[in-house]
Amino acid sequence: MSEDTRPLPPGVTRRPVVRYTREGHLAPSEPDTVAIEEPLDIRISGDTLAITMRTPGADRFLVTGFLFAEGLIHSAEDLGALAHCGRPGEEGYGNIVEVTPAPGLVIDLEKVGATKRGTLTTASCGVCGRRSVDDLMASCTPVPPGPALAASVLARATEHLRTLQPNFARTGGVHAAAALDERGEVLAAFEDVGRHNAVDKVVGALLLQHGLRSARASRPSTSRATVLVVSGRVSFEIIQKATVARVPVVASVSAASALAIDLAERAGLTLATFVRDGRFNLYTHPERVREG
Amino acid sequence: MSEDTRPLPPGVTRRPVVRYTREGHLAPSEPDTVAIEEPLDIRISGDTLAITMRTPGADRFLVTGFLFAEGLIHSAEDLGALAHCGRPGEEGYGNIVEVTPAPGLVIDLEKVGATKRGTLTTASCGVCGRRSVDDLMASCTPVPPGPALAASVLARATEHLRTLQPNFARTGGVHAAAALDERGEVLAAFEDVGRHNAVDKVVGALLLQHGLRSARASRPSTSRATVLVVSGRVSFEIIQKATVARVPVVASVSAASALAIDLAERAGLTLATFVRDGRFNLYTHPERVREG
Repeated sequence: MSEDTRPLPPGVTRRPVVRYTREGHLAPSEPDTVAIEEPLDIRISGDTLAITMRTPGADRFLVTGFLFAEGLIHSAEDLGALAHCGRPGEEGYGNIVEVTPAPGLVIDLEKVGATKRGTLTTASCGVCGRRSVDDLMASCTPVPPGPALAASVLARATEHLRTLQPNFARTGGVHAAAALDERGEVLAAFEDVGRHNAVDKVVGALLLQHGLRSARASRPSTSRATVLVVSGRVSFEIIQKATVARVPVVASVSAASALAIDLAERAGLTLATFVRDGRFNLYTHPERVREG
Repeated sequence: MSEDTRPLPPGVTRRPVVRYTREGHLAPSEPDTVAIEEPLDIRISGDTLAITMRTPGADRFLVTGFLFAEGLIHSAEDLGALAHCGRPGEEGYGNIVEVTPAPGLVIDLEKVGATKRGTLTTASCGVCGRRSVDDLMASCTPVPPGPALAASVLARATEHLRTLQPNFARTGGVHAAAALDERGEVLAAFEDVGRHNAVDKVVGALLLQHGLRSARASRPSTSRATVLVVSGRVSFEIIQKATVARVPVVASVSAASALAIDLAERAGLTLATFVRDGRFNLYTHPERVREG
């Protein structure tokens, strides 16, 4: 077959492939489209805070959402400068982001903790050194009751992912997350090889474009985001990020862990899983969802 | 419906659920089976090295495989003691593992690095501070050529996951990994809410039960493991773990990232994706796979 030379969208690239067919043959095929995964080094005033493997693009949203989930910033105003280091064309350009906090704000890397791994967060609402659900939620401000959400809107929530997830269709290898308002309109949507990165990008967009400020900000403010939709499994970390962003409903195409359910219960979040084909399961706070 | 009171297998629990049906009704249902997710605090001589969110069970294998992937131990002999802290029945018991290195071995936590997050590893073959594939692979010893693997064995590799993944069938919310020998026989298999944890458990079992010693050990030794099978997407981290464990073939039900492909090429690994329904795609080192 002739090589596919159409221009590629951001976030994907091509690699050669040999296909094995049901007939038992190995044969080179036209190059396959695959998701890009690259490290992003997040630096605060020159020191590395974290390195995350992500799909390049929307780095500004990713870093903003990450710092917010970690409790290091509380609103867009806490960001001074946020820029890629180096010069375009240099090796590694685009994979380091340097954050300068707003004047007067100090981000203490020591306080963030030195033992991070996996889907771990260590800041205000994190897991580090905490062994029970009580401990985990102790420093998270629960989300207040409401608003009411129509079950039909929730049942259709994950349909948006399909239409907003072009690279999944191309590669089968990326996660997606989106924020919807209470009518199901999409406020922000991103794809990434990392599920938590896709969520960080969405939350970053809520800060930078939709006026979200944390419960601990000087003038707290929610965004219009009512549903956080995710393509993958719901781990405790997704619930933690939704709680900090005060998005009251989390909807997943897939399953949730027991810890995610227990944290959602405590945080006042409505957690819906297996949201597909017009159905869903509600594990927590079903009172927010009304028939219709 | 009456409550399901059958005893539960390890790794899962039950939570109440309200189901929304296609007919538009919300109704409480019998409790749903969900995967357990809890933090594991991995301590070296009293200091926390990492906290990972995992499904409890096989913690000994998980910690051993994790330390091996991080380059902190090179064989089972490097482990002195490895035990859960505290007393059974105490809050948090079972979620802290204390590792004492073998006499004469010092594990320097400072050297491991203080900026870990996401699917990140920072040790001998890790990503920290490295911005290119060359850098990433610089300290990884490539896997030597061979052995030959029959395409029919590879095509069936992921079928084992289905039979070995009872909790996935119950919950829809766990990942699985397995090590197979060149005839496709299962040497080790584990489920976990975290894909990387399932792989760490498999590699830990190769160390503790199948004589695996790293290329940097005093007497290097491979195990009989020829294929590392994973249920999820292949990120760079899975390739890194397979390389350190010198398992020459990685087979996934799902897709791989571009970085995973590039690292597998450099590391001498054969990477097969979308291994299902008697078919697969080979991205790297197809010479290891023969028709038949």
